Amino acid sequence: MKIGSVLRDGKVVLAIAVSEDEVIIPEARDDLPATMLDVIEQWPKAISALEASIGNAPRHKINDLHWVPPVPQPGKVVCIALNNSANKDRIMSGPSHPATFIKPSSSLVGHGQPLRLKSAYGRVHPEPELAVVIGRRASDVQREDALQHVFGYTIINDLTAPQMRGEDTFHYRAIHPAKGNSSEIEYVDSWVSYPGRYKGADTFGPIGPWIVTRDEIADPHNLAVRCVHQGRLVTEDNTANLTNKVADVIAFISSYQVLEPGDIVAMGTALKKAGSGGQAVQNVNLTALGGPIEVSISSIGTLSNPVEYR
Amino acid sequence: MKIGSVLRDGKVVLAIAVSEDEVIIPEARDDLPATMLDVIEQWPKAISALEASIGNAPRHKINDLHWVPPVPQPGKVVCIALNNSANKDRIMSGPSHPATFIKPSSSLVGHGQPLRLKSAYGRVHPEPELAVVIGRRASDVQREDALQHVFGYTIINDLTAPQMRGEDTFHYRAIHPAKGNSSEIEYVDSWVSYPGRYKGADTFGPIGPWIVTRDEIADPHNLAVRCVHQGRLVTEDNTANLTNKVADVIAFISSYQVLEPGDIVAMGTALKKAGSGGQAVQNVNLTALGGPIEVSISSIGTLSNPVEYR
Repeated sequence: MKIGSVLRDGKVVLAIAVSEDEVIIPEARDDLPATMLDVIEQWPKAISALEASIGNAPRHKINDLHWVPPVPQPGKVVCIALNNSANKDRIMSGPSHPATFIKPSSSLVGHGQPLRLKSAYGRVHPEPELAVVIGRRASDVQREDALQHVFGYTIINDLTAPQMRGEDTFHYRAIHPAKGNSSEIEYVDSWVSYPGRYKGADTFGPIGPWIVTRDEIADPHNLAVRCVHQGRLVTEDNTANLTNKVADVIAFISSYQVLEPGDIVAMGTALKKAGSGGQAVQNVNLTALGGPIEVSISSIGTLSNPVEYR
Repeated sequence: MKIGSVLRDGKVVLAIAVSEDEVIIPEARDDLPATMLDVIEQWPKAISALEASIGNAPRHKINDLHWVPPVPQPGKVVCIALNNSANKDRIMSGPSHPATFIKPSSSLVGHGQPLRLKSAYGRVHPEPELAVVIGRRASDVQREDALQHVFGYTIINDLTAPQMRGEDTFHYRAIHPAKGNSSEIEYVDSWVSYPGRYKGADTFGPIGPWIVTRDEIADPHNLAVRCVHQGRLVTEDNTANLTNKVADVIAFISSYQVLEPGDIVAMGTALKKAGSGGQAVQNVNLTALGGPIEVSISSIGTLSNPVEYR
């Protein structure tokens, strides 16, 4: 099932895709889930109940609706950095496990909603990504069991502002306990960068349009990813190229950080495919060029957003 | 008013401090706020209603209660990095504005709750910090108006794992648009680090015990900060030494990221005060030494947590 959240008469309600460009909105009834978190908590029973409710419900065109993030306020959005095998030859040093940062849920916007940029942000580029939606609490889970904790998949465009990234990077002398005397200190030359701004500004997390439940995605690592800017193909990739796979990522995160129902895990960015004729996503400066910017993932759909200036 | 959240009979309820070590728990009544978000939304009216309710309500000893984070699940926790004037001589390059990262709300625990560490985390040290609780939505606010958006203040211990920080740092060639031809790319030698794990592991955010409403803190930059480990003073500092002040920080964050009621802003860490005889917080390895670890801030109170291993 493809299931999203839309704003209708001031209230967030569910929307179920019934064709390429049409959805139905289930009635408000006691025996049906009202919010995406209800669906996730009552899954898989909720899915059958929603399916049975489709019947002859009126159809709405996708682009006539006001989409909000499929999980409107997830507890957290965990993003995986530098997770494409095409990165390998440009990493001089780094971890072999997934490295993560948190994108605030206040930065999320739905399909069709404007990305609101400021010239002070400098260059802002898209990062087309597969996003995993957690269905069951995951703490210290094994790789073999990890996919059982997945409710479904959606699309996220992990907007990034490299000028702000550069500004928010420190070269400094970190304080460590002194070698040989742990009650004294010594200084260690270090670099540290902080993603709160360059990854977490308002509207830097367009997500959706909907979640495709796990049963419809036989293999999350066989999905074509395309990024299109103003009608021109920018990047074509496949989730097969992700270095750390969904099961590895969930198991690893859960070894230090609980994943809760509705949490989102963004898997890392599709890159320029050799010979595709596309550019790198880094060439698309949304601040200068405007939108729309689209991300499509096969079996899921297309997330498209215009650009506005604030 | 000092107001926190406690778990009682399986439900999170409010607790109001009435002496150094005693609180009352307001009755469940329609005319009283039930949760901290209710209090914040109905502030300042809610405060007068709660005050009127204290009367002869039964007293509870603070340490007999199960404390949860004062705002149990804030929308986001924005943390300011390297914000102490004592840092100045160890920063070779970095921004003059506040640099931020997001700590997930799933990492928060209340006063008295155990910090659950793993040996795989390596060294974990405390970072005693003043935390600001947002009371009113702040988007593009001016410095002069910023404090009007503050509901109150609490204490956060921003646990940090430097070994994980080192592991999650990349030295890599970032892709930028080529100088002179923005449709081609060039590589730029860069460092980037990701705080999802070293700042965001479960229990890395002890916070509380309660919020002191803004009216009781005449100047948030005249508060003594103390960090005590196993009864021994580690660090003594004052919020006067914070480089970016509360009003600057709120105004700056709000220029790119909305702050919403219940959001937390952690102001940055107290450091060793010259001549205090204390150590640096970096000398306190909680993974090896265990707890309890205490942070006290004058006019607010004391946040104390034991350490367990998982």
